[in-house]
Amino acid sequence: MSILVVGSVAFDTVRTPFGEGREVLGGSATHFAVSASFWTPVRLVAVVGEDFTDEHRHPLRLRKVDLAGLATAPGRTFRWAGEYGDDLNTARTLDTQLNVFADFRPVIPQGWHETPLLFLANIDPDLQWEVLEKVHGAKLVAADTMNYWIDAKPASLERLLTKIDILLINDAEIRQLTGERNLVRAAEAVLARGPAAVVVKRGEHGVVVFDAAGAFALPAYPLRTVMDPTGAGDAFAGGFLGYLSSQGLDGERDLRRAAVVGSVMASYQVEDFSLDRVLRLTQAEIRERYGQFAALTRFDPLP
Amino acid sequence: MSILVVGSVAFDTVRTPFGEGREVLGGSATHFAVSASFWTPVRLVAVVGEDFTDEHRHPLRLRKVDLAGLATAPGRTFRWAGEYGDDLNTARTLDTQLNVFADFRPVIPQGWHETPLLFLANIDPDLQWEVLEKVHGAKLVAADTMNYWIDAKPASLERLLTKIDILLINDAEIRQLTGERNLVRAAEAVLARGPAAVVVKRGEHGVVVFDAAGAFALPAYPLRTVMDPTGAGDAFAGGFLGYLSSQGLDGERDLRRAAVVGSVMASYQVEDFSLDRVLRLTQAEIRERYGQFAALTRFDPLP
Repeated sequence: MSILVVGSVAFDTVRTPFGEGREVLGGSATHFAVSASFWTPVRLVAVVGEDFTDEHRHPLRLRKVDLAGLATAPGRTFRWAGEYGDDLNTARTLDTQLNVFADFRPVIPQGWHETPLLFLANIDPDLQWEVLEKVHGAKLVAADTMNYWIDAKPASLERLLTKIDILLINDAEIRQLTGERNLVRAAEAVLARGPAAVVVKRGEHGVVVFDAAGAFALPAYPLRTVMDPTGAGDAFAGGFLGYLSSQGLDGERDLRRAAVVGSVMASYQVEDFSLDRVLRLTQAEIRERYGQFAALTRFDPLP
Repeated sequence: MSILVVGSVAFDTVRTPFGEGREVLGGSATHFAVSASFWTPVRLVAVVGEDFTDEHRHPLRLRKVDLAGLATAPGRTFRWAGEYGDDLNTARTLDTQLNVFADFRPVIPQGWHETPLLFLANIDPDLQWEVLEKVHGAKLVAADTMNYWIDAKPASLERLLTKIDILLINDAEIRQLTGERNLVRAAEAVLARGPAAVVVKRGEHGVVVFDAAGAFALPAYPLRTVMDPTGAGDAFAGGFLGYLSSQGLDGERDLRRAAVVGSVMASYQVEDFSLDRVLRLTQAEIRERYGQFAALTRFDPLP
């Protein structure tokens, strides 16, 4: 089963306490696609500039990501620069150059309108809506968003929420979106607006999934080395939805296993800059860390 | 098997977004003792002033806490006033009146020197050391500390670390103590100094236990209502060590179950001011929430 992702492809310049990546391949669609590609075929819809070469496409092709939806527009590719301090949970944006992304209007290639899974990565909610309407064959739709859109386009986000199945969002943003400081109440407020599930990403503190059946909480994997947190949320989403896609959409959806897989992919994502760690990843390593998550969290019933 | 706790007994005045408690019974030894009392007999060593009445002793007696070590000194009982904002993770101290606590020299009652479990709650590390030397029969010693002592008495803390089995500490403090921002490295640094285990308390993000066998991570229970976080850490410690005490100290120590029990007790502690929720607690409720933690965290292996 295929997933279609719409989002950004970018060149990132990132400084962390452990090093620097200059103009490295990034963007939400990129990180999502590479992560999901370990689980399911991925179709990518995004735009790049004339400076985006075959060499830049190479890692995505290596992962067999279908690039028929990757448009090239006159101008330069989207650029983002940011830095992380000792607190690796939040990036400080130093520079954003939208470039070709400023006029991005997603075009869905022939035959992609029936893609069963759709991930609307963090872009303008009006563009997310446009893609949602075009990919009318999707059986499962998930979306991410961020503080900027919650501020700038609340009505567009509200409309989107009524039509998606799963919202992925971080803890500060779900509080901003709902005005609820308490996480349980914030999740209830999201579920009341439409989505069947909400996935709250908490960075180094892990993830909580809320749906009608209740809550599932998973700590993040305690890593000795975190090089660069950029893309962790998108790698999580790629693993989460990639796993669901790999299991088909007819049976019961095991959001718990999906959240563990997402956390596995995110834990590898942050071990190096850009895609450097994830591109070296093997199926054996993925299964190994899944087992490490089980060992990290298991406990016995009371005697 | 008995536990001896040395720490503070206090009157707390606490404001949270959900209400206020004025001069309510608090203090690290109090919260620890009441929580642990659900699991094991507790002996309390602390000091109060002449304003501490039989009525104030009542909740502790109700929980069968042995008060032979609760000295009364001329003057007023220790008082603390603080408030929590929307972020319930950190209290802002408004007022501290040490009163009789300023000259506290712990006196260990006859027959208590052999108590098998010793908990050194968050007090001056020199006093912790004094008690540690006096309770020479203890087979398991755990200690808590805080930012103030890490700053003010680093050498005393270092000495203490060489002699205790388990350190309980929050995440900001373990980073301060070790100078390591990464939690895994910080825990390794503590283990290298002596303790066999370190328990990192992360407030609403749960707890991580590190020992030679590896890490165990547990999220906090997602509560719809948190009235007052005061005492959560001490209630955790009470459940954690109370459980270990209830299982005896000869077999393998199940720190995982102990951490879940601690989290259960802490989750009830924060549901109301002072001891109001915990004093109403039943064994059935404790077992029920333990099961809820299992339901919250369980997931299946990959297919």
